[in-house]
Amino acid sequence: QSNVTVFGVLDVGVQQLTNGSKRLNLMSIDGLQTSRLGFRGTEDLGDGMSASFHLEGALSPDTGGSSLDFRRRSTVGLAKKGMGELRIGRDYTPTFWSISRFNAFGTNGVGAASNLLYGFDGLSSTASSVVRASNSVGYHLPDTLGGVYGQAMYAFGEGAPGKYAGARIGYANKDLDVAAAYSTTENNAAGDDFKVTNLGGSYKFGDARVMVLLHRSEQTTRKQDGWSLGGTYSLGLTTLRASVTRAHYTNSVGSVDYSGNQIAFGAVHALSKRTSLYATISRVANSSGAKYVIPGGNTVSAGQGSRGTEAGIYHTF
Amino acid sequence: QSNVTVFGVLDVGVQQLTNGSKRLNLMSIDGLQTSRLGFRGTEDLGDGMSASFHLEGALSPDTGGSSLDFRRRSTVGLAKKGMGELRIGRDYTPTFWSISRFNAFGTNGVGAASNLLYGFDGLSSTASSVVRASNSVGYHLPDTLGGVYGQAMYAFGEGAPGKYAGARIGYANKDLDVAAAYSTTENNAAGDDFKVTNLGGSYKFGDARVMVLLHRSEQTTRKQDGWSLGGTYSLGLTTLRASVTRAHYTNSVGSVDYSGNQIAFGAVHALSKRTSLYATISRVANSSGAKYVIPGGNTVSAGQGSRGTEAGIYHTF
Amino acid sequence: QSNVTVFGVLDVGVQQLTNGSKRLNLMSIDGLQTSRLGFRGTEDLGDGMSASFHLEGALSPDTGGSSLDFRRRSTVGLAKKGMGELRIGRDYTPTFWSISRFNAFGTNGVGAASNLLYGFDGLSSTASSVVRASNSVGYHLPDTLGGVYGQAMYAFGEGAPGKYAGARIGYANKDLDVAAAYSTTENNAAGDDFKVTNLGGSYKFGDARVMVLLHRSEQTTRKQDGWSLGGTYSLGLTTLRASVTRAHYTNSVGSVDYSGNQIAFGAVHALSKRTSLYATISRVANSSGAKYVIPGGNTVSAGQGSRGTEAGIYHTF
Repeated sequence: QSNVTVFGVLDVGVQQLTNGSKRLNLMSIDGLQTSRLGFRGTEDLGDGMSASFHLEGALSPDTGGSSLDFRRRSTVGLAKKGMGELRIGRDYTPTFWSISRFNAFGTNGVGAASNLLYGFDGLSSTASSVVRASNSVGYHLPDTLGGVYGQAMYAFGEGAPGKYAGARIGYANKDLDVAAAYSTTENNAAGDDFKVTNLGGSYKFGDARVMVLLHRSEQTTRKQDGWSLGGTYSLGLTTLRASVTRAHYTNSVGSVDYSGNQIAFGAVHALSKRTSLYATISRVANSSGAKYVIPGGNTVSAGQGSRGTEAGIYHTF
Repeated sequence: QSNVTVFGVLDVGVQQLTNGSKRLNLMSIDGLQTSRLGFRGTEDLGDGMSASFHLEGALSPDTGGSSLDFRRRSTVGLAKKGMGELRIGRDYTPTFWSISRFNAFGTNGVGAASNLLYGFDGLSSTASSVVRASNSVGYHLPDTLGGVYGQAMYAFGEGAPGKYAGARIGYANKDLDVAAAYSTTENNAAGDDFKVTNLGGSYKFGDARVMVLLHRSEQTTRKQDGWSLGGTYSLGLTTLRASVTRAHYTNSVGSVDYSGNQIAFGAVHALSKRTSLYATISRVANSSGAKYVIPGGNTVSAGQGSRGTEAGIYHTF
Repeated sequence: QSNVTVFGVLDVGVQQLTNGSKRLNLMSIDGLQTSRLGFRGTEDLGDGMSASFHLEGALSPDTGGSSLDFRRRSTVGLAKKGMGELRIGRDYTPTFWSISRFNAFGTNGVGAASNLLYGFDGLSSTASSVVRASNSVGYHLPDTLGGVYGQAMYAFGEGAPGKYAGARIGYANKDLDVAAAYSTTENNAAGDDFKVTNLGGSYKFGDARVMVLLHRSEQTTRKQDGWSLGGTYSLGLTTLRASVTRAHYTNSVGSVDYSGNQIAFGAVHALSKRTSLYATISRVANSSGAKYVIPGGNTVSAGQGSRGTEAGIYHTF
């Protein structure tokens, strides 16, 4: 029992999504953080070595389902002080982390930078490795390198598309945090590579933190270049958040060229370290041909916009 | 870890079901309480406020499957002393509770009042809200109202049938407990409402408790009126249970008119506060045209009866 | 909380499987023990009596899925000191245990005796009862019989194939351990019985343990006779393992007659009581007509061989 920590997040709220001219009122989830249930633990092996495990699955508190799996993360790790950690299983890809770390809304809610920046057209389904990779072996640098952090990951294809190799390197001190990451994924049977490159940074001025992120996805003739600029401002228990995100997609075959942009504002009010209330508003505008959208509502026609408003409660345990 | 309580119930036994002339011997589950696994916790936010979560899914200990989800209950709550609780997620509907609370066998086992009283024909599938509702916001009265208790719930349809609104109000003291509930559910694309009304009460005389329940389900031309009368008698560690339940269904279209009744006897013997043995026998009789049945066995033809016997072990943790 | 112990195993590694001429590199799981997550507890009922529960489901740490169920084991037990235990639910069959207990690689990894000995052709799918049975009632002898141990199990068919009856009896002291088991399973709608008989033993000489197992599966005209011989040798924190296994299948209809054999070597190095590293190599050779194979890779044609190498990390919590 003492070997295991049971942990989780429940995040539910209400949401109004207006895609094109269609409006939908919903119970929403995951506006601030993704709802989850997990089990984790660390064992001291002596000599600065430790073994650890992490099992984490997504929850849908609005409906109670679907079934629990551990596809958010499922890893065994072996670490040594000053040497870093070897981690095996299903884990986040190095190239994912910058979207989460260098945007005020990260990858959650109506204002998430990932609404535009994931893969092509903001879709996490562009490749199996946009967020996580199964069958992976990862190495994480130790936390003893004077602020330098980083990780590398290789994921087996196991005879099917999905083979991934990627790495991230960063530097963080009290105020500054910068990181760059690159990955390549064998994304189809023909062996075409899906490549991700990103570079992000944040800087803290007193109660404010400013963040910037450049993010590129490429595969053969297709390319999406995106950026996000935003920040947070702490007013005691309340934190204000704002972000502007832009994505520009081109395909040299067919001369496809379109773009979308998103602007989002929000506030998070902490009731405690474990519980917060939050509200966010966001608007996505598309150029002719683009279908960027706040996920979860009706589909949009090319060029139509998307607006979202949500308010919710976040509770962690 | 200290933030989370892992809890559950395992209830397994053996059962003989005779539906019409077909007899089946089974390993049964859930004869006394539904088998389940859950995770819950409460956080003190100060000033009489608290946040809480509750994740609970059904188990099938006879086969070990199907997969775990949290469709029994999946909620986040925010409460204040003297003000009540706001609860969001998937939860029991207010109109469900009276069947469970005012019948000696509740909604479990061969003698359950719900065998007849759920929806039409005793089917919990009559509407998505017979037992629980997804995408719901609920308000529960505080426990500081001198015995008055109650709750109201609204569930989003999210563009599909299932929109629910319902409430329950009751009063309980040491011996007496009475409650009334009403709900309406948008039950199909045409917008037809499924309505439930019930009224129940129980009274404790020394070691005995007597219970009565009136329960009505309606939708357009269809109506099912039911009642249940029963009680429990405590003999130290053993509690005797008995119940008579009747349901009468009419549909003005086609002049459909039939009824069923159920009589059940049982005993529960406590080995501890957490573990009990139980046995129940039950018989359902149908008028011409009716197919009320003890669930889990063969189907019956209209007018045929159903008999069930079960014995099991209940263990909670 | 104190009523429940959360426990589990994560076992992941890398594997190379060469079946016929096809080679596959994989992330592998379960090379030493099957990855799992479980919940269990015991309640003291006084007077030497206790109630207990055990819920255990398989994990796939390489991919994080599929969904969690409790099909490894899902039982409620009632025990009395000196009297034994009654256990209800889904549990391991008595005839399963000898394969696990009397082979150096048991039922896990490229060298598992079960690769050949399970059912016919090494397939656990030969009958629903090869490893476990749902809807079962089991009785386990108490641990107060001077080293004699044993169990009997009956599983309900519930109107479908799968009715099982089996028993196991054994004797263990400090150095010696022997057991015999027999079962019969109603394996199809025609009522044909699948029968398993096995006899195994192990003996400890100093740092070595030698194990032998005889295992027979039969159904109507089909019979598979198998044996396994192997052992372990402890060198401090490292344990060496070796095993030779042979299976011989005949079907009097069609005069089918073929055999396969497997030879496996391996080592397990304990980093702690809870965490180990391991490596195993194994080779399966088939006679003309046989398709025995190390599971998880490509299919083989009759008569082709199979080779496997794996290395992994095992962590229990």
